[in-house]
Amino acid sequence: MANQSTATQPHAAENDNGAGVERPHATLAARLMGAALRNLGDPAIEIVLWNGERICTSSHPPVARVRFADRTTLRRLAANPELEFGEAYSDGRLGVEGDLTALMEEVNRAGHAAARRNPATRSIAQWLRRTPVNTLARSRDNVHHHYDIGNDFYSLWLGETMAYTCAYYPTPAATLDEAQVAKMHHVSRKLRLRPGETVVEAGCGWGSFALHMARHYGVKVRAFNISREQVAYARERAGQAGLDGQVEYIEDDYRNCASGAARNYDVFVSVGMLEHVGVANYRELGRVIDRCLKPTGRGLVHSIGRNRPAPLNPWIAKRIFPGAYPPSLKEMMDIFEGTDLSVLDVENIRLHYAQTLRGWRANFEQATDRIAKMFDERFVRMWRLYLAGSEAAFTTGDLQLFQVLFAPGASNHIPWTRDDIYRSSGDSADAGPSGFL
Amino acid sequence: MANQSTATQPHAAENDNGAGVERPHATLAARLMGAALRNLGDPAIEIVLWNGERICTSSHPPVARVRFADRTTLRRLAANPELEFGEAYSDGRLGVEGDLTALMEEVNRAGHAAARRNPATRSIAQWLRRTPVNTLARSRDNVHHHYDIGNDFYSLWLGETMAYTCAYYPTPAATLDEAQVAKMHHVSRKLRLRPGETVVEAGCGWGSFALHMARHYGVKVRAFNISREQVAYARERAGQAGLDGQVEYIEDDYRNCASGAARNYDVFVSVGMLEHVGVANYRELGRVIDRCLKPTGRGLVHSIGRNRPAPLNPWIAKRIFPGAYPPSLKEMMDIFEGTDLSVLDVENIRLHYAQTLRGWRANFEQATDRIAKMFDERFVRMWRLYLAGSEAAFTTGDLQLFQVLFAPGASNHIPWTRDDIYRSSGDSADAGPSGFL
Repeated sequence: MANQSTATQPHAAENDNGAGVERPHATLAARLMGAALRNLGDPAIEIVLWNGERICTSSHPPVARVRFADRTTLRRLAANPELEFGEAYSDGRLGVEGDLTALMEEVNRAGHAAARRNPATRSIAQWLRRTPVNTLARSRDNVHHHYDIGNDFYSLWLGETMAYTCAYYPTPAATLDEAQVAKMHHVSRKLRLRPGETVVEAGCGWGSFALHMARHYGVKVRAFNISREQVAYARERAGQAGLDGQVEYIEDDYRNCASGAARNYDVFVSVGMLEHVGVANYRELGRVIDRCLKPTGRGLVHSIGRNRPAPLNPWIAKRIFPGAYPPSLKEMMDIFEGTDLSVLDVENIRLHYAQTLRGWRANFEQATDRIAKMFDERFVRMWRLYLAGSEAAFTTGDLQLFQVLFAPGASNHIPWTRDDIYRSSGDSADAGPSGFL
Repeated sequence: MANQSTATQPHAAENDNGAGVERPHATLAARLMGAALRNLGDPAIEIVLWNGERICTSSHPPVARVRFADRTTLRRLAANPELEFGEAYSDGRLGVEGDLTALMEEVNRAGHAAARRNPATRSIAQWLRRTPVNTLARSRDNVHHHYDIGNDFYSLWLGETMAYTCAYYPTPAATLDEAQVAKMHHVSRKLRLRPGETVVEAGCGWGSFALHMARHYGVKVRAFNISREQVAYARERAGQAGLDGQVEYIEDDYRNCASGAARNYDVFVSVGMLEHVGVANYRELGRVIDRCLKPTGRGLVHSIGRNRPAPLNPWIAKRIFPGAYPPSLKEMMDIFEGTDLSVLDVENIRLHYAQTLRGWRANFEQATDRIAKMFDERFVRMWRLYLAGSEAAFTTGDLQLFQVLFAPGASNHIPWTRDDIYRSSGDSADAGPSGFL
């Protein structure tokens, strides 16, 4: 995918800027920048320094241009690229001309290709290209600052469902709202919800999935969330929908969902919470699930993940999601293998998250004037980078989205096949499925 | 599922045998046997000693009866239960009256329940109840003795396809042969095979799946197997079918499938080989796959597995499958996370393996006279125990069957949804699927 190293014929040299990195009169800053680009696998991007020098080490036309406002920004970036790219972009000291997502994708892909050509460079390349891209998930626990932003802000771009998790597009042409509803059906069908069953939801956000399950599948839901604002919002919605008899929103930690309710639930479900649980707590999460589920029960965990373990980008950790971590499948298995749970079905739908992020970003860009008035321009840039970088990470395979279906290990009340999930797929699926024995 | 401890009212005491374990005049052997049954979680089985004493610690009617021929057998079993149960059964020193599979299931389930009531007993209970149940898979590498048995023997009970791996039952009423064909379609559909593509199969057994892919999906297959007899059999079949231009059987180790063929294949597939690879070699397997696959490729590994790691039963290791090991999903992830592969889809179809084993066992029991003439009665008992114990292990959740679909991490030539696998499911699926972008 990436090009051969083309240091002798950099693309910039074909332009009329006269400042290609290999020129003898290039400044030290330009030379260092050229070396950094080669380390990144020669992405097709052009760097423009404060003095007008242009650097591009790829032979392909640049997909975007990165403009440095001053020497200090470059110095900071060199010292701590993972943190400082996001900081400089948010401050406006580093500008991007062209498509922000395409820039991220190009950096990711060049890094992947470089790592394949020379595995020894994998670690440095991974380190650098992870700069602006990382987790995207619902807030939990120590991420209150993410939610203190307020419901008004999120309602500007999450769409009607207010679901802040990966949607499921039955076709790529579906709208964001359609895909969020389809996601809720897809998860409900995998769980083979039946009327009258009891569901515990760990981390329920603004509550739309709990309402969906109650409305379309006739189940009773106890939905946990530690965010007071979200719980208040969700309760109001349930009341308006006349579903407050079927759905109970509980302002408490998911770890308390099993207390006093030993093996009382038919279903455990968690969509977009695991990212905030922490690998060290996965075994405890498994025990909580085990204490919740009846012997005939089943559960589903939906989470951002990775193909292999990697640390969280420090800019995301500082500015967006403190404490978040997208696990690899191997890491996720600690939830199940520490207790008596059996994994039945794993689906990776990362391309759906890229599409979801495109939908969110489109809404976001429509509302930037209002968002800038609510906050400021720096906030707008910060969130733009976060949405674009996350989209790029799902497109280039740096992030995955796993849905893991499971059941108690001794249960034979498990699906014989997955046929029933896909029977009349695309319908509203109000009819009870028949997949469980 | 299991009963409360009923030491004061053992089921045996309700019979007219007068030798319940708690009776004051019970022998030491009977007392020890009673203690062993309680350790196993009081399975509803009855033990009959050489002196006529009967022991049952469950309050439920026994599902089967185990008869000890002599004191030596009990002594050996006490010293090394995992190995000696199989040895004594094969020798006829330990007889089973009633359904052999039901006996194994009852022991497994009682052990599970005891472990849930008292997690501290889990390890001992697991150790004991794993006695006769363990892996079932195709022979590889150091399991030549399994295959020296010969094609004539296997053709008596594997069915028309000669597929020695888990079948896929579109409905539980499907026949064994129908289900083996359905399995081959199911795997082919997951792989989204398209005419003209190239497939490498690692561990091809008697070659039926390679022929199936060539015939129904128009692909070219290079199929690896180290068994000379199987390869000869497979080549003859390919010639008879007129498919020897499309399918090449190669008598070589799977590790050589990537040599001289860097990223030349569209598809890597392995059905029932991983059990014989060994966890320590999974990363190497991942590198082999990575070297095989084009950037747009995909692969599938189908293997027996477990919900959590556990050692192989020594009787199976000694008599059936030296070197075999069914991994947990966490262990399997070493294949993918050590290199640049992304897991797309995992399906656990363990109930299908129980059904497959029922089909094999039914055929086997129809042929025991011929098998006894080919070998001897001991051989018949050994294989009966192996088939019944494996069936019980899949029924009670001690073993799993995982199909893992994957692709190179950077590939966006991956399915958007799984709809296409299930579209016109049950048809012969000759039409090319359209799931890949």
